[in-house]
Formats: sequence, C-alpha cells, structure tokens
Amino acid sequence: MHAITIPEPGGPEALVWAEVPDPVPGEGEVLVDVVSSAVNRADVLQRQGFYNPPPGASPYPGLECAGRISAIGPGVTGWSVGDEVCALLAGGGYAEKVAVPAGQLLPVPAGLDLVLAAALPEVTATVWSNVFMVAHLRPTETLLVHGGSSGIGTMAIQLAKAVGARVAVTAGGPGKLARCAELGADILIDYREQDFVEELGKATDGAGADVILDIIGAKYLDRNVQALAVNGRLAIIGLQGGAKGELNLGALLSKRAAVTATSLRGRPLAEKSAIVAAVREHVWPLIADGVVRPVVDRTLPMQDAAEAHRVMEASTHIGKVLLRSPAAA
Amino acid sequence: MHAITIPEPGGPEALVWAEVPDPVPGEGEVLVDVVSSAVNRADVLQRQGFYNPPPGASPYPGLECAGRISAIGPGVTGWSVGDEVCALLAGGGYAEKVAVPAGQLLPVPAGLDLVLAAALPEVTATVWSNVFMVAHLRPTETLLVHGGSSGIGTMAIQLAKAVGARVAVTAGGPGKLARCAELGADILIDYREQDFVEELGKATDGAGADVILDIIGAKYLDRNVQALAVNGRLAIIGLQGGAKGELNLGALLSKRAAVTATSLRGRPLAEKSAIVAAVREHVWPLIADGVVRPVVDRTLPMQDAAEAHRVMEASTHIGKVLLRSPAAA
Repeated sequence: MHAITIPEPGGPEALVWAEVPDPVPGEGEVLVDVVSSAVNRADVLQRQGFYNPPPGASPYPGLECAGRISAIGPGVTGWSVGDEVCALLAGGGYAEKVAVPAGQLLPVPAGLDLVLAAALPEVTATVWSNVFMVAHLRPTETLLVHGGSSGIGTMAIQLAKAVGARVAVTAGGPGKLARCAELGADILIDYREQDFVEELGKATDGAGADVILDIIGAKYLDRNVQALAVNGRLAIIGLQGGAKGELNLGALLSKRAAVTATSLRGRPLAEKSAIVAAVREHVWPLIADGVVRPVVDRTLPMQDAAEAHRVMEASTHIGKVLLRSPAAA
Repeated sequence: MHAITIPEPGGPEALVWAEVPDPVPGEGEVLVDVVSSAVNRADVLQRQGFYNPPPGASPYPGLECAGRISAIGPGVTGWSVGDEVCALLAGGGYAEKVAVPAGQLLPVPAGLDLVLAAALPEVTATVWSNVFMVAHLRPTETLLVHGGSSGIGTMAIQLAKAVGARVAVTAGGPGKLARCAELGADILIDYREQDFVEELGKATDGAGADVILDIIGAKYLDRNVQALAVNGRLAIIGLQGGAKGELNLGALLSKRAAVTATSLRGRPLAEKSAIVAAVREHVWPLIADGVVRPVVDRTLPMQDAAEAHRVMEASTHIGKVLLRSPAAA
C-alpha cells in the first residue's frame, strides 16, 4: 500500500507519499481500506518531531479515518468484511490501509457520506469525553469553547446546544464567529478585539462559564480560572499557548472549581473503547437525526497532505480538513 | 450567653470570652446548647482578620460543635428538643449557644461521648466530600494525605483504609508518623527529611498517588502533580503554602489528571446538607462500629480558646483540639 511517511521531521514538505508494507490486523483488530482521513493539530506536531506515536502505534500520521473493513483479525465479533466504518486511531490514518482495534470502530451514521465520516471520530470522542464524561456539562449550564470554528469547536457547539446548554465561543474574526453563530453559539467573542473574561462576564451577569473547553493551556490559564463560574470545570485538551502557567489556587478554591487536562491518543485501549461506546450511544443518534453535522472546510487528495497541513497551520479553515485516499476515487 | 469574640484581629490573645446576645433560630434552624466545639485552621485565619465569616453567619469563630437541641425554629422536622447532636457550622461554635440549619445537624454516633462528637463534623465532611464525592477514591487505589497527623489527616487515613485503599502520609517527625501508622497508614514519609515524590515513587513502583488530599497549595503544587498517578486527582483544601503556583499542564495532560480546590464554609446550604447527608449515610456507621474513631489531642475549657490556638499554631498536636463549654461541666 501507500502511506504518508515522515522520513525526516520538518515543515509540510516532510510529508512523503511512499510505498510501505501493508498492515496486518492483530488479535482484536480489523483491517480497514481507507477512503478518507482527517488532519489534526497533533499530526502537525508529529510531522515536526514533537509528538511521537505511542508504543505499538503505526508510525504514519492520522488519528482517524473512514473506510470499509477488508479483513477481520482473530477474536473480533460484531463486524464483517465490507462494513462501512469510521474509526479512532492511534496513528496510521494517512494511508490506504490501517489496522484498527475493534473497540475503536464506529458504524457510519445513517445518511452520512462515507468520506465525511472521517471528520467525526476525533472531535466527537474528544468533545464527548471531556465536556460530558469529565466535566459533566448539564442542560442549564454555560459552556465556553475556545477556538469555536475549529473541528473540535464546531462539534462542541452543536453537542452542547443539542443537550440544551448555553454556548459561548472565542474565535478570530467576524467570519469565523458568524459560522459559530449558525451552528448555534449564543455568545460570540472575537479574541483579537475583545477580552473573553470581560465579555463572558457581561453576557452571564457576572456568573461565568460552568465548563470551559480549552486548547490554549498556559497562556489562558489565569484568565480561564477568572472566567469560571462557582463549581466550574476547566477542561484543557491542547497546549497551543504553552505548558506551564501560574494557577491561582485561591481563586480556584473560592469557586470550588476544577482543572482537568486530557489527551485521547495516549489512553489505553479499554478507555478509548469506553469513550467510543459512549459516543455511539449519545452522539450517533444526533447525527443520524441531522441535529449534529460534521463541519468540513475542504477535502484534499491524501497525496497532498502537505497542502492540508499548510491550511491547518494558516488557521483560516472552519471545521475539519479531510484527506481523500486514491482508493476513494 | 457567653461566646469567644474577636474585638480586634490579632494573636491568640485577641480571643475574648464575653457576654453577647443569645442567637435566635430562624426558619429551618434549631438552637443548640453547645457542650463542645473544636479548633480549625480557618479559626486562626479568622482571628487574624484574614477570613471573614460568610454573609449571614455568626461573627464568632467555630465551624463545628456538639450539644443538645434547646429550641426548634419554624419549618424544622425530624429533630426534637433534648436531642444530642453535632453540627457543621458557618461560624459561632465557640459559644454557649448556636443557631444551626437543620441540614447541618448529625446525631451523635452510637457509643460516642457527646464532648468528643465535636471532633467529627468538619473532618468527616471535608474528607468525605473531597476524597470520595469529588475525587472518587476507589478501594484498590492509593491516597496520599499531606499532614497525616492533623484532624483532617487522621480521619482521611481511617476512612480510606475503611474502604480498602492504600494510604501514604506525610508528617513532620517520627512521633506523628507512628500515630499515622497506628491509624492504618501504609507509607510513612517524614517531610522534614524525605522528598515525598521520591518516597511515594519507591513505594508504588513509580505509579504515584491516585488521589492526593492537600492542605499546602502553591508550595506543593508542582511536586503534587509529579506525585500523581495516571488519571490522578489532586484535591486541594488548604493554602498553607501559598495561593499562586506554577502548574505544569504538560504533565497534567500526559497523566490525564485533575486539580480541584474546595472549601466547605462558603458552600450554599443545599450543598452542605447534601454532604452532611452523605456523611451520615457512609461515615456514621463506621464510627458506630468502632472502625473509625475521632482522634483528639486534648480538650481545653472554651474560655481558654487562646491557649487552644497556640497549640494549633505550634503544630505539635495530633488530631483535633477541642473546647469544652462551661455548660458541659
């Protein structure tokens, strides 16, 4: 098969489409003929040499895919050759084939194009596990989403609105904010022009956010704690603004608040499977009903992964950037 | 009645036994004739002028008491004049009488001396709400308790052991550690001589603590995060080592860990009542069975509250320091 390889870490040009050995499904795994994959920020870090795949994972980038099952490994039940699926991966999505633990497979939601299904696994699993399983967002509460127009952000807005919560977003510029509003966001904050603590305070009568979904980390830590409501939960899923920051424990204590930080990729198989099962139970029906939709900025040929990374790094996109495998043509 | 008043904030001598008006039980409250109260670090801060009572609370110090109900306010059911009780208070325990919301009352556990019951409300509510309701300590997990010989610490050791967890403690010196061992602590760390991250690592094959109950705050923040296990939960309940510290979000994220900070006193009535109900359900049977016992360092006359504060500030005590009301004689 072919896959995007990284012979040497570097810029987007470090991504090289090359012939590599086919993967073989191990115990509890299936082989998927990949139709599409999607770009995540972690892929950019991996390309740059800053985020190595966990032990046992594929060396190729790509944390999610959609496709058709072409072989079933030992010990797998409930799936058949030919099934259309999408999957959460520990790596290897930028390829024509990938071996996937059965617990990380999801059926393609009813009515959804197979190529678009690659936009779902990472964002649904990340948002559901953090906003609902860790931070327990409730229907009457307010969620603040940083980067509301990102793949994660566009899914977080829709899922929080679907359960009845109020949603505030930050994004850069009126175009991105308008798209967030279309998806249901109630409070729109342009981080280039406005202070999110102040704007959120105005919009909530000073109460703040019950849950914050954050991709910035250190740079926003102090202001995120300021923006939290009493009993608030700050869920950090990215460190784009640095890894070490000052935490005001006095403020945290007076609010009885919590700071959590998680990543999906490093979780053991059992935890990933539990999250995927919860996503199938809670999120898939909302997609089948059309209440929640994947938001896709564009779809590029997988061989042009370098261009897809340039788009991601320019941060002008809204929603997911997909990669279509040559086999999908 | 008489109460310990604080005419001017200051050292222990700022505590003055004086005649003051009797409290009147409001809607949903009972009046308790106080037999005993207990000293908490928050009382020291209040005496120094750093921790004002929340709105509506008694101006006198004292966050817990034991005694007998002497009057029932409007709207209270389930309690009678003459009942022997102990109670969580928002203030006013250092007094001959105190008005208490009915939701913060607990019966005196079977077989326990009434005076000793004042040692229970704060430590059981603090430990149960943080270690079990917030951090969800499970039977196979390891709990690290900082200040293992304190009132909070001695209760945390016993409750964690009672549910089957492994317990590590830090304390200052062999005498305090020996008492922690008698109460069931498995891993003993003298913080004056040893590094707790290193010692805990050795004792857990590098796994660390699943839950940490911390009273230090900023000074321990970085080392507490280092000491956490994967999926670990750091529950901060005191800031004796400062309120602002650097948080390593990268380490937190790679462990998928959580930092929470809470205080009991500022919680609304409904949350306090829920905690008290959980304590009555889960902790009271363990005390009635003798599995868990209050640990009391000494009992002083309430009029000598200044001396009790000196003991607390010298930190040579083990367990709780109680104050006996003149009415108990």
